[in-house]
Amino acid sequence: MKHFSIEEITGWDRFYRANFVNSLSGFKPVSLIASRNEAGQTNLAIFSNIVHIGADPAMVGFINRPREAAPHTIANIEATGKYTINHVRAEFAAQAHQTSAKYPEGASEFEEVGLTPDYKLGFEVPFVKESHVQYAMELFEIISLKMNNTFLVVGKLQHAFVEKAALKEDGFLELSSAGSMVSLGLDAYYETIPHSRFAYAKPDQPTRSI
Amino acid sequence: MKHFSIEEITGWDRFYRANFVNSLSGFKPVSLIASRNEAGQTNLAIFSNIVHIGADPAMVGFINRPREAAPHTIANIEATGKYTINHVRAEFAAQAHQTSAKYPEGASEFEEVGLTPDYKLGFEVPFVKESHVQYAMELFEIISLKMNNTFLVVGKLQHAFVEKAALKEDGFLELSSAGSMVSLGLDAYYETIPHSRFAYAKPDQPTRSI
Repeated sequence: MKHFSIEEITGWDRFYRANFVNSLSGFKPVSLIASRNEAGQTNLAIFSNIVHIGADPAMVGFINRPREAAPHTIANIEATGKYTINHVRAEFAAQAHQTSAKYPEGASEFEEVGLTPDYKLGFEVPFVKESHVQYAMELFEIISLKMNNTFLVVGKLQHAFVEKAALKEDGFLELSSAGSMVSLGLDAYYETIPHSRFAYAKPDQPTRSI
Repeated sequence: MKHFSIEEITGWDRFYRANFVNSLSGFKPVSLIASRNEAGQTNLAIFSNIVHIGADPAMVGFINRPREAAPHTIANIEATGKYTINHVRAEFAAQAHQTSAKYPEGASEFEEVGLTPDYKLGFEVPFVKESHVQYAMELFEIISLKMNNTFLVVGKLQHAFVEKAALKEDGFLELSSAGSMVSLGLDAYYETIPHSRFAYAKPDQPTRSI
């Protein structure tokens, strides 16, 4: 094991440090967030700092970088209150990554990278047709994290679309079979292999596989 | 694709809903968080709702459930300001899961599940010796998420320990080779397989593998 103190990490070149610190916290649930402004212009951007907040009510949060680095998604969500989150699959990982390029104002990443906007159920923001797990969100709250000008954007689940075969009899979604990927650091993508599921843990019982 | 509205999801049995909603947001960076109270009693608990907040300063957050459901980690962190986060490997996934059992007051999960507390560098809280990626944190801020009584606990990185072979020349950590797992839903664990890394995306250039 190699040890690094925060003093050493702080002294590194910023790209080296960004690669290291972004990987250190582990794998991330990489998704495309679609949003639109009041004029109807869509935006599609890759996000991986997404976090489950609660099941009842069903809430999910994500970290939006500072406005100067990533202005569109947060501004659109503030304007319309609606967005969709779409899991990334290996088949379109390169296109998903490409959404992080700084396209000119007025461009839609859907068109630029070749992914298909899927409008359904009258929801104002499109889903990503190529994704096999898609969910629609309504903004609940934006919490400003003042130490580094990022934001925790918290939304309430409105609709979920999941590939039928991924849904198990207890409500669990077998995302490996749906092709959902994880990302790592700033630019790496991984597929997953099921290892185990365990029963609810009790202090007086050995851990039991299910 | 199967569609579920929030009205339908809200009406489900709570276990079915918890399985579904906890899986919907995707795979999670499963880790063991070690903490201790002022009397020196250690606690070890499995967490997966962990989110990268920034690289400079290096900050990581995690969601702590309501106090009545998960009182120890947050109370210890409030008391001492220090904790360690340790990636889970397949070799001890069952033991990591078992830390979620409600052990009596005064028990340490290290002992109960058979993992090894590793005190080093004079840091007040032990690391998990069996883990190949370990990092030490100092509390920065606890943000109360009032809609469901959870907390975003934000910490500043103090020390990192990583398996040498995982560190690449650009600072990236190849966590698949370090054996770091992901979790899904409430009780599932997965291993990962590298798929791709892509260069920084530019609008006028095709996506390029690195």
